[in-house]
Order: sequence, then structure tokens, then C-alpha cells
Amino acid sequence: MKEKEKEEIVKKGVKIIPLGGLEQIGMNITAFEYEDSIIVVDCGLSFPDDEMLGIDLVIPDVTYLKENIHKVKGFVITHGHEDHIGGLPYVLKDINVPVYATKLTIGIIENKLKEHNLLKSTKRKVIKYGQSINLGCFRIEFIRTNHSIADAAALAIYSPAGIIVHTGDFKIDYTPVFGQTIDLQRFGELGKKGVLALMCDSTNVERPGFTMSERSVGISFDNIFAENKLHRIIIATFASNVDRVQQIINSAVKFGRKVVLEGRSMVNIMSTASELGYITVPENVLIETEMMKNYTDDQLVLITTGSQGEAMAALSRIAASTHRKISIKPGDTVIFSSHPIPGNERSVNKVINDLYRQGAKVIYQDTHVSGHACQEEIKLIYSLTRPKYAIPVHGEYKHLIKHAELAEKLGVDKNNIKILSSGDVLELTDEKAQIVDKVQAQGILVDGLGVGDVGNIVLRDRQHLSENGLLIVVVTLEKHSNQVLAGPDIVSRGFVYVRESENLMDEARYVVNGALDKCLDKGITDWGKIKTEIKDSLSDYLWKKTKRNPMILPIIMEV
Amino acid sequence: MKEKEKEEIVKKGVKIIPLGGLEQIGMNITAFEYEDSIIVVDCGLSFPDDEMLGIDLVIPDVTYLKENIHKVKGFVITHGHEDHIGGLPYVLKDINVPVYATKLTIGIIENKLKEHNLLKSTKRKVIKYGQSINLGCFRIEFIRTNHSIADAAALAIYSPAGIIVHTGDFKIDYTPVFGQTIDLQRFGELGKKGVLALMCDSTNVERPGFTMSERSVGISFDNIFAENKLHRIIIATFASNVDRVQQIINSAVKFGRKVVLEGRSMVNIMSTASELGYITVPENVLIETEMMKNYTDDQLVLITTGSQGEAMAALSRIAASTHRKISIKPGDTVIFSSHPIPGNERSVNKVINDLYRQGAKVIYQDTHVSGHACQEEIKLIYSLTRPKYAIPVHGEYKHLIKHAELAEKLGVDKNNIKILSSGDVLELTDEKAQIVDKVQAQGILVDGLGVGDVGNIVLRDRQHLSENGLLIVVVTLEKHSNQVLAGPDIVSRGFVYVRESENLMDEARYVVNGALDKCLDKGITDWGKIKTEIKDSLSDYLWKKTKRNPMILPIIMEV
Repeated sequence: MKEKEKEEIVKKGVKIIPLGGLEQIGMNITAFEYEDSIIVVDCGLSFPDDEMLGIDLVIPDVTYLKENIHKVKGFVITHGHEDHIGGLPYVLKDINVPVYATKLTIGIIENKLKEHNLLKSTKRKVIKYGQSINLGCFRIEFIRTNHSIADAAALAIYSPAGIIVHTGDFKIDYTPVFGQTIDLQRFGELGKKGVLALMCDSTNVERPGFTMSERSVGISFDNIFAENKLHRIIIATFASNVDRVQQIINSAVKFGRKVVLEGRSMVNIMSTASELGYITVPENVLIETEMMKNYTDDQLVLITTGSQGEAMAALSRIAASTHRKISIKPGDTVIFSSHPIPGNERSVNKVINDLYRQGAKVIYQDTHVSGHACQEEIKLIYSLTRPKYAIPVHGEYKHLIKHAELAEKLGVDKNNIKILSSGDVLELTDEKAQIVDKVQAQGILVDGLGVGDVGNIVLRDRQHLSENGLLIVVVTLEKHSNQVLAGPDIVSRGFVYVRESENLMDEARYVVNGALDKCLDKGITDWGKIKTEIKDSLSDYLWKKTKRNPMILPIIMEV
Repeated sequence: MKEKEKEEIVKKGVKIIPLGGLEQIGMNITAFEYEDSIIVVDCGLSFPDDEMLGIDLVIPDVTYLKENIHKVKGFVITHGHEDHIGGLPYVLKDINVPVYATKLTIGIIENKLKEHNLLKSTKRKVIKYGQSINLGCFRIEFIRTNHSIADAAALAIYSPAGIIVHTGDFKIDYTPVFGQTIDLQRFGELGKKGVLALMCDSTNVERPGFTMSERSVGISFDNIFAENKLHRIIIATFASNVDRVQQIINSAVKFGRKVVLEGRSMVNIMSTASELGYITVPENVLIETEMMKNYTDDQLVLITTGSQGEAMAALSRIAASTHRKISIKPGDTVIFSSHPIPGNERSVNKVINDLYRQGAKVIYQDTHVSGHACQEEIKLIYSLTRPKYAIPVHGEYKHLIKHAELAEKLGVDKNNIKILSSGDVLELTDEKAQIVDKVQAQGILVDGLGVGDVGNIVLRDRQHLSENGLLIVVVTLEKHSNQVLAGPDIVSRGFVYVRESENLMDEARYVVNGALDKCLDKGITDWGKIKTEIKDSLSDYLWKKTKRNPMILPIIMEV
């Protein structure tokens, strides 16, 4: 090989292509590409924004992966939260490559694959901390971290262009409930070897100090159990926080209470965690909901979903007295072991107020810790890895900016800090980092069974209908003469309470008749024009009368 | 008068009737009744909940006042915030009685009355702190307090049954920006005389300690101005917080900057505050937006509405690049002098992210203080007034409960703490407090010009339409034979993107034809039954195909 050719090979960069996770919260998915190899880290979903009316969830657009399907070697998953795995069942239908993750993560993914009938067709492999896998020209090492779900991993991605460290979601817990502390030594070793780029969690970058240990919540539980010995205790938390549930069970055992699990996702994840050995429940502690009647209130703890005030979750139904099996008794102590995710404050408050109204005592302070690193932890990871490039990930834009400011203070060259947008193709070499391309990376909306069939026009119509309702005007015309044979009939929904607005409706019919007469007089026979005339005159009339702007749908039938 | 009759008169109680403000946030309005006198404290509006689709605002139902109109002597208003005055223009149309308030409050009310053409028909009277008015058998004294708007008052309501102290919204500010500290001495004097009941603000009852002085924000402003001397400064805050705007102007003058006011409500309230002497602006400091081009960035401060991320407010439009006159330049320093009201977090975050994307520096910490009393302040008011009865007001149910717990700790007998619901009629005497009746007190929805014409059915339809969209099926039948003459035509909105779902629509038409044939075969001629058949078969088909449940509207025309 000639000197010149060699040089060119050395200068080839690794491409980092976030296909989601930077414009929205959630939906984390990032492709890493070098020559003919692509690996994909995480494949999450996100929940719809307020304006995505009727949408169930949003999944990543993987057009770029489809177009390069021959290069794609596998999905490497950092941990089992929805925003990192939820897109898999949808994406695997098109990109059927193996999935690599730690044991609990694979267990949770398998539950999803079962639901989508994909278990047989999907190759998956459990990877241990410290273990590496080779995928094309990449080697990926799984590094132990701490998070609000067990078995979370950071990844060291060895590419011909250098090592990229991806933290996944993480915190530093020196006294974790399950397993060991994040493998800080390995981060240090990698730093000594030389880290090309660090992609680090930004979620809590605005918070100074250190995130408290998960174990501190267990101490709070013990105190609350000790102070509330006479009544039933109900604790709402995230189904996936196995360590949290473990600590509730520990307190229950200590205080001689039986434990009931409520909510489908809670039951599912606990059964997986228990099978795989991530939670230890002494015999005869867990009981079925139906068995509660055999125990007194002071012998019971309920662990339930619904800590975010989700309308259909167990706790919300209990609070609203619509749960079939459980209702609040005065004296019940209800603990929210969670913080409201931004946007959920009102729903959570509603549930809290409902619980108080039913006579419960509600505790929602000092009963939760975050799963994400605060400033001092982020600083520590930077100091151990000393990356050449910093690429902040996981967070809204404001978090990425604050993270960039922090990285600069920690000694990363300002020009080497890259804030990316979804779809950016960043090419990294030891010499330079530049955005070389832009690929398709919008979220795809899922509504019922429909994936991608609801777009902006449908959403705009839903918005219009939701705010103003609609009026349908139907008229049957004679084929040749355009004379009115039947109608105009006006049907409205979501506009006004019709019985109290009969006058308005009568006048609206009058306005439509006027519009039809006008068209007939002028000899207008084009249906499009007739419809526009009806729409405009009715719209003007209604705005004048009501200052509202319902959707108006003229329909012409011909006989 | 015989002894017995006298005794009966003495035992007659004063009635306290909250007509709003306890089920929702906002919409504060409370009637006080004794024999043939009723006075009404505040008359606010509330903003719609998330499920009140398309609703502009919610006003109180004053049916009880209408039914007792001959008794109603006047509205007594504590301060000029929307949740205390916003209902007035609607309610005054039915309950045309005089309005009493302090000077700035009356000024702000007059702006509203002008908009609604009610200025001439409404009697109003400015009351000074310390002054009393006699309304029927009540005497009402206005007491100076501090709040996030100037001229806020607490009320001492003297009734034949005893003195009721109503704090309104308040905090204790020992170093207020305008005017003086809350009249703590008067609270003490009243306590010595004997207070029957205290109705005290609960908003911040969950927060320990003391609310910081408004003046502390001014110090933050000075620091931020000193640190950002080169660029333009934009500050978003509540239009009604005149003291906040005063402090921004003070900093601007100190640092030699001109001030631009942006947003209709900001300009309106500042002009009222300035006319009435509640704000001092040196000459040549305020400039018009159009004049900005004559100054360099370091010579300018913009004060704007939109601190809650309201989509149509000035700041949101600036951030989204849709403001006609102002756009963000890299380096602009944008300050949020506010906290997001629960439920607004997402919208506020969106604006912050947009601003960062445009290159602004955004500051949203330590630039706001609350206008409401924290625990230590509430304790102080209880210790000064030592009421027999405590009636917590202003807050969600959880706040009222925490307030009740606090009152008990402060020595109020548990049985004398009354948590009310809107519509409760509480009768108070020195001997006992009991709920003796329940009156109508739901909120009334305002949508455009319509007051009360949107009810639950309309809202349910809007909800249904917003989540699933609709399908309209139109068919023209022959009068006697019920043979199909035209159609079925299917029109959909907000359901699926029709161009990509042609098959689905074809099959839907096939399903409808099947339903029509079935009816014809069975000799069913009742339109109601035909519509039900169409609806049910189409609904089943669409659910099977899409797992969605659009509204289906069959319309039959007859020729």
C-alpha cells in the first residue's frame, strides 16, 4: 500500500447519526457508521406532544437504516426503559437484525416481542458487564452503570477512528440497592487509553451537586411505615423501578405487611425481574388483590402504577372510585414515590386532590430520587474519560446547551463540543468533527394499528374539530337543473348545544338557502364553487353571531 | 322585646357561601349573607382545564345571587388579578350593584368595563386602606397587604355575628417596592377585639419559611444587567406585576438602557399604573418598538408578556420567529421573571428551547419571587388574629388540607376548621359552625360570544372528534321505496390521510352498502334503525381494521 492511500484510510471518520432523541424527549436512537458497518444504539419511542391529538405514541423514522440495510449489524440497547426500547417492535419489522443487551433489558424486550409476535423472528443475545461484542468493524463493550432500572449499561464503542463512550442514562450510586456501583475504574482506564468522543446524559445537567442514592428512599419508606402503623399503605411508583419495589418489599417484610401489586405493567415487570433474579421476595409476602379481605389494613401494602397521574392507571382509578377492586378508606396512607415528569403536574395534582377528598393521607415529598446524574457526577465522568469531543445527549435543547457550557468549563475545546439535531450526520476523526450530511429523522405517529397514516393534515383537522366542532350541510340537487330536491340539512357536533340554539340553526339554514339561490341565479353549476359559497357565507354568519369558527363541511348529493 | 326573642336574634348566624374558587384554581367569589344583606367578595374567572376543549374561560354561576338580587349590596374586590376580577364584566350584566376596591384595582376593573361597554352602567367606588364601607348590615374595612400586584387588600367584615377576616391573596413584604408593609398592627388589633373567622390564602401552605421580598428580584436584575452589558436584554413577566416592571425600569435607568414594552396587556396595565401613580418612569426612558432601530443592543431592554409560554403572547412569537417587529439576535439575554404555573411547564420549556436555538442566553432561575405567603407568614397571621374558626381559601384541595393541619397546630380547635366546597352554605355563630344548605355553584363555560351554551355533550363530542376524527356517511333514499338514489358518499376528517387509505374507504362504502341492503331485505324503513345499522357495522369494521373509533355520522336524505 502506498503512503498516500494509507493516509486516506487513517483520515476516514466514524459517522454518528442520531435518528431521534434530540428534538423530542425520548425516542432515543443513534446509528454509528464506519465504511460498511452500522450499529444502532437504542431504539426508543416517545409519547405524543399535547398537539398530537389522538396519537398513541411516536416511533423513529428509520428510512436511513432501511436504505443501508446491508450494513446494519445489530441493535445495542443500554437499558430497558420505553424511551430506549419502545420503538423496537415497530422497527424490527423492517430492520430484522440481532438485539444485544444485558439480561434484564433482554427480558423486558422479550415481553414486548411476545406481544407483537416477534419473539421467534428476532435474534437476541444477553451481554454481561465487561463483555464485548464485535459487529462489523465495531467492537462494543458493555460497562456497568447505575440508573432507575437495574442492568443499565454504558457503551464503549471501538471504531477504527477511535473510542466513543456513550453513557446511556446513568447516575453514580455508591450504595446501590441491587448490584454494584457504576464501573468508574473502567471509565478511567478508557480515558487513559484515549477517548475520541463522550456522549453523556444531560437530563439533570441543570441540577448542582450529586443525585442521592436509591437507598435513601428505603430509609424514607422505613420512617413512613414506622409512623403509619395502623393504616393501609399504598405506594405508587414506576413499574420499571425494580429496586424501588424491592425496597418497598423490604420495608413491608420488616413491618410485617403483605404486598399486593396493582397495574398490568407492574405485574409484568416484577414477574420478569423475579424470574431473572433481580428482585428477592420472601415466600408468602406477595398476595393477590382478592386476598386482601383476609387481612387487616395494618397488614397490607399496595404497590401500584399511576404515579404520573395517567388516567387509566390503577392509582388514578382508585382515586376516582372507578377501580373495580380497590377503594380508598379514610386513614389510608398514599405515597407518591416519583416526581411528575414536566407536563404531568396537573394530572398528578388531580389524583392527589381526589385522594385527599376520599380521606387519604398523601405523601409526595422526599420519597423519590432521580435516576440521572447531576452536575458533579457529569463532571466526574468527564474527568475520568477526558474526551476529545463532547456530544451531549438525552435532554431538551436547553439541557444540551447547559451541558456544552459545563463541558467547556471542564476543559473540552469549545470547537470540539457538538450539539446535534436528529438527522445530522457527524463525521469524527482525530483531526476534525463536522456535519457532513442530513438524513430523514422525523418521528412517525402511531394511532391504533396505523403507523404513519396520521400526518399534519389529519392533526390539523383534529385540532380544528377539538376547538370548534363542526357543521355539516347536506343538500341533494337535481342532476341537470341543479334545483334543490332535498335539504339543506344541517347537522352539528361539538359546536353548540343544539336544543338551546334552535334559532341559530334556523338562521343558518336560511343563510345556506341564500347561498344556493345566489348560485342558481348566477348559473353557477360547479360543485366546488357552490360548496365554497355555502362555506363562506355560513362561516361569516356564524363568526358574527358566535365569534366561533367551526369546521364547515358542505356535501352535495345528486339525483 | 321578650328575653326569648332576643336570644334567637343573638343566635342568628352569618352565612358564608363560596360560589367558586374551591373546586378549581381561580374563579374566586364568596357571598356573605346576614338576614337581608348580601355582599360579594371578589368575582374572578378561571382558565379552562385540559379537557375543556375550545373553551376560552370559565366564569362563576351566580344563580344564587340572581335569586336574591334584592339583598345584594355590592362587590368588594381584594385586588386586580383575573382570578379575582375577571368574572365581573359577565356577572355585572345580571347583578348590577356597585363595585368597591382600592384605586389601582378599580383602574384595572375600569379597563375591563370599557371593553365590555359597561363603564356607564356600573357604579364603582375607590376605597382607601383603613377606610370602611357600610353595605346593608355589614361593615367592611380594607386592610393593607402585600402581593404581586399593588393595592392588594385584606378585608375585615363586621357582621352582627362577629368579625370575619379575609386575607385575599397576600404575602408579608417588609421591604416592598411600592407602598408599605402589610398592616400587621391592624391584624393584631382585630385579634384583640376578637375574630370570629379567618379566611386565609392557602396557595403556598406547602412551602416552609418566608417568601422573599419583591426587592430581592431587583438585586438579581442589577446583577444580570452588570454581567450582560454588551447585549440586548429581554425580560418576560406578568403584565400585572407593576412592582416587577418598576424594578426592571430602575435597573434600565441605572445601566443607561431604554425600555420597550411589548404585549397588549403589558401596555394597558402600565398605562393605568402610570396614570394612577403606581409606577415612576423617568422621562425619555420608555420608547416605542419602532424606535429600537435608533439604539444599539446594549442600550435596550424589552419587557414583554408571555412568561407562561402562552402561544399568542409576545415572547412566544419572538421565540418562534413569528413576531412582526422583533426577532432574537445571537447574544440576546432573555430573562423569565416568573415561575411556570403548574400545567404550563411544557409550553414554557418549548419557548426556552426555541430561544436557545435562536442563539439567546436564557436565565430562569432566581429571577422571581412568589406573591403568596409561606408557612411562617400564615402562622404569623393566625397568631395576630387568633380566630375562633379557620376557613382555608385559595388553593387546591390538598392545600386546604395542609392549611387545616397547620391551623390545628396553631391552636384552632379541630372542629372549628372548616374546609368548604363551592356552593356550601356555612352558617357561623359564636357557638357553632355548620353547613346548612348547598346552592348552585358550577363554573359556566365561555366560548367566543357564547356564555353557557357549551355543556358536557358538546365537550364530549369535541373530545371524541379530537382523538379519532369523524366519518360522515350520506345517502339519498327514494321516499316510498327506500331505494338508494345517490350515495352512500363517505367524507372523513381527522381520521386517516385519505389518499393513502383509498382501499379502506372503498371497503367502508362496501360495508355501508351491505348495511343498507340488509335493511332493505328486512323491510326496515325506520331511519333511526337504518342509521344505527350503518353506524354499528361501519364502527365494527373500522375498529377491526384500524383499532380506532372515529365518530360516525350517518345522514339520510329523502327525495
